[in-house]
Amino acid sequence: MHILITGAAGMIGRKLTERLAKDGALDGKPVDKLTLLDVAAPATPAGFAGKVETAAADLAAPGEAAKAITGRPDVIFHLAGVVSGEAELDFDKGYHVNLDGTRALLEAVRAIGDGYRPRIIYTSSIAVFGAPFPPSIPDDFHLTPLTSYGTQKAIGEALLADYIRRGICTGVGIRLPTIVVRPGLPNKAASGFFSGIIREPLAGVEAVLPVPETVVHTHASPRSAIGFLVHAAGLAPDALGPRINLSMPGVCCTVAEQMAALRRIAGERVAARIRREHDPLVARIVEGWPQRIEAKRARELGFKAESSFDEIIRIHIDDDRGGAFVN
Amino acid sequence: MHILITGAAGMIGRKLTERLAKDGALDGKPVDKLTLLDVAAPATPAGFAGKVETAAADLAAPGEAAKAITGRPDVIFHLAGVVSGEAELDFDKGYHVNLDGTRALLEAVRAIGDGYRPRIIYTSSIAVFGAPFPPSIPDDFHLTPLTSYGTQKAIGEALLADYIRRGICTGVGIRLPTIVVRPGLPNKAASGFFSGIIREPLAGVEAVLPVPETVVHTHASPRSAIGFLVHAAGLAPDALGPRINLSMPGVCCTVAEQMAALRRIAGERVAARIRREHDPLVARIVEGWPQRIEAKRARELGFKAESSFDEIIRIHIDDDRGGAFVN
Repeated sequence: MHILITGAAGMIGRKLTERLAKDGALDGKPVDKLTLLDVAAPATPAGFAGKVETAAADLAAPGEAAKAITGRPDVIFHLAGVVSGEAELDFDKGYHVNLDGTRALLEAVRAIGDGYRPRIIYTSSIAVFGAPFPPSIPDDFHLTPLTSYGTQKAIGEALLADYIRRGICTGVGIRLPTIVVRPGLPNKAASGFFSGIIREPLAGVEAVLPVPETVVHTHASPRSAIGFLVHAAGLAPDALGPRINLSMPGVCCTVAEQMAALRRIAGERVAARIRREHDPLVARIVEGWPQRIEAKRARELGFKAESSFDEIIRIHIDDDRGGAFVN
Repeated sequence: MHILITGAAGMIGRKLTERLAKDGALDGKPVDKLTLLDVAAPATPAGFAGKVETAAADLAAPGEAAKAITGRPDVIFHLAGVVSGEAELDFDKGYHVNLDGTRALLEAVRAIGDGYRPRIIYTSSIAVFGAPFPPSIPDDFHLTPLTSYGTQKAIGEALLADYIRRGICTGVGIRLPTIVVRPGLPNKAASGFFSGIIREPLAGVEAVLPVPETVVHTHASPRSAIGFLVHAAGLAPDALGPRINLSMPGVCCTVAEQMAALRRIAGERVAARIRREHDPLVARIVEGWPQRIEAKRARELGFKAESSFDEIIRIHIDDDRGGAFVN
């Protein structure tokens, strides 16, 4: 099996690459080739027996998407994207990468045409939903994004669904909840602080909380996100019917509950490294985001997330901090 | 006030032009200029005292959208589009006109930038919804189109909402129910027969019914459609909040009820001119369409449609047949 990962240098892309390299298989079939693509060439994974190709490409640039799929990958994990904060600040870049890049990829698949029909797993986001919300957002809630990022993701979902319906590819769009705890440096996502207030204190560094502690949000760990992607790739093509875009499950809690979990696991001294500093842009964006996601269909289809925020913190300590933290 | 109508040569475009020419005003303000655009130059309306410019243009072609708005119209009725049947048969043309054309228009507005902020009234369609449906489709039902046309309209809605949110324009997206009775020749819309089974018999011509009589659908007259557009243009910019796309009201009935109304108004001989001939493509497309539209928000905002199918037939006889029909 040949797998293409776009956005392979991003956090999710790297972790997915590691997982596929380690498993050496996807959906019970051996992986013999990985094509890793990003705007800068991604690193080659360690310990993978198959062939690896890496490429630096802007999918939306003429000819680049066609080049990316000349090897006819069987499965495409389309993770490439500009994050929410950046798409809001840079209108052109957001539409270029998130809309034009996705459309170019789908069009490149269609241009091949002669029976080539890859499986495309597309990462969407719960940012496709916009306030006001019911207490829990059902699977059939309408898409009224309040950010350009959410708009671009909603358009990507609609395109993917139409290309699947026309038989050009098979696939699933998965709406990720906020993925925490993100390792490494902060990115430009408006949701970055949800990770920061856990990651920084555990690393002995002060973290800024830009929103009120009462903010309610749905989270899943990077490990769960990779699990969603792998599970989506393995679903039977007709398991979903025509509604191929799915909200993923997660842990729903307040920022105060996140902080309490940190205190339980790492102690008062660590939790005290969170400093409150209101940021109106971030607060406004987050206010428009969904709080509680029902994800009934996804749960029924076997997608699994953590059951507590404590578990999410422990996964971060295990997977990204070698089991330790700075007391 | 300067008004641009795209798709001005289409049925809705022509009737809107006539109405604006006759009223000489929109939202209480005098109309001093009409710019009428379509792929072939539209006709100049009779009896309009203001200035009229007509243009033949493909909005998606480079530079054409910018040219179309050089006169900085205050209101843009964006009606241009490829209809459902054609967009399903010609994938490229549908995306080119319905997606790229709409995006090009929005981008042209953004490119002007120096405070220019027109009001854009966009005609979407209930084809943005896809089966399975609840008994009545609420305003917050999700968009899961089952045609490329519905997909393109849903994307147009999302783009318009984002451009409005960013302050680039103001506007409303209105989801038209099926507009009947369409005068003139049949078009390529899969919904064309809903008009044909009334229009042809009244003209003394045989009509084909390609779907079962039990099909339930929501209809409004062309007169109502023009009413929706004019009413949308007059709404206060902040009347809608961020959810600027609205399902329009209509008369919900079965094909059998349409035929009974025709029999009541025009007699048995006219109604007998309907011949049943199943068309699997049309039947499949129509099966995926919504039946009953709640349109609660639109009704609350003052959008009005007919209250019976009889009324819709009478409007056709009055507006398009000079009050008479072929017995």
